[in-house]
Amino acid sequence: MGRCHNGRVSVSNTTRTAGVGQSRPGGRSARIRAAVHRAVQELLAECTVESLTIPMVADRAGVHATTIYRRWRSIGELLASVAGHRFSGEVVVPDTGSLRGDLEQWAADVATDLADPDVLALMRAAVGASGPEHGANVCVADRRAQLAAMIERERSRGGDPPEVSLVEDALLGPLYYRATFTERPGDPEWARDLVARVLG
Amino acid sequence: MGRCHNGRVSVSNTTRTAGVGQSRPGGRSARIRAAVHRAVQELLAECTVESLTIPMVADRAGVHATTIYRRWRSIGELLASVAGHRFSGEVVVPDTGSLRGDLEQWAADVATDLADPDVLALMRAAVGASGPEHGANVCVADRRAQLAAMIERERSRGGDPPEVSLVEDALLGPLYYRATFTERPGDPEWARDLVARVLG
Repeated sequence: MGRCHNGRVSVSNTTRTAGVGQSRPGGRSARIRAAVHRAVQELLAECTVESLTIPMVADRAGVHATTIYRRWRSIGELLASVAGHRFSGEVVVPDTGSLRGDLEQWAADVATDLADPDVLALMRAAVGASGPEHGANVCVADRRAQLAAMIERERSRGGDPPEVSLVEDALLGPLYYRATFTERPGDPEWARDLVARVLG
Repeated sequence: MGRCHNGRVSVSNTTRTAGVGQSRPGGRSARIRAAVHRAVQELLAECTVESLTIPMVADRAGVHATTIYRRWRSIGELLASVAGHRFSGEVVVPDTGSLRGDLEQWAADVATDLADPDVLALMRAAVGASGPEHGANVCVADRRAQLAAMIERERSRGGDPPEVSLVEDALLGPLYYRATFTERPGDPEWARDLVARVLG
């Protein structure tokens, strides 16, 4: 338990960092969630997703497996929960004063985030572990809301921005496509160039 | 064995369609591959990917599990193999006489293909089951080659097409992003509109 079964190097118990016994802000429920989420992220960095089980996560997090099953009924739900948490926050909506400036900074930040191998591993696991009802959607829900907010702000400034769906196709499309399906996640310069293509 | 463990409806043994005992063109090796591939696709339509195991696939395909392990060392490799096979062919490169016509027809065909729930289930499973070295890449390798071929043909006709990477971002980006990460895979009309956006 708590070790990978595929021969890759595993973190030994003595180097655990996610035990619930450690003090964290928030109540016991928040501590458990944080420990379980961190255990999943650690294990994904060490194991294949196929080898991941709830008892293994429980062991790494220092909680009982039943505690995990009570909140997340399957490894798929758990992965979606971790991904949803990871893909909220991290990237913030910039406020540069212009839509172009906002989108350039934001797209560059998303590209940087998606180039992180740990983020990629979590995203791929969340995509694979689920139907459309949970999993993949949570990797983009916050980004879509951020994009809509930037475009709405431009409209409230009296600007005439493109439709959200058009910008979503032009920015989130290639950003997530490259990260998910190719060996070359985007870099910030390329991401800023995507903005120039859609805004002209 | 051969049944899902998550309570969803499973196809009973009497309705199996993928047994290797049936006559197929090609040698025994090709028959086994076809039976195993079909078993995976059937099971993905019935089960969550988390519940999929090689013994389950073997049972459905009517082969020994060791036969599968000899060719594909893990369920991840097997899923990548099935996805690679499914994402080669199906969509062909059109020859309408113009790059615009070719891309419009091709993008519409890719959109239609990616809107198939069985294709989506396989693609998501292949993405999740693997690192970048196998899995996700196989879902797009053939499409990228097709795109490059259409653009090269336009160049050989004396045209001045955009760079392949730019068209890939503008077409495959949103096509695969929508299918993978949102509840609304693209439709042919939207796909043709993507072509207008990149070609002007």
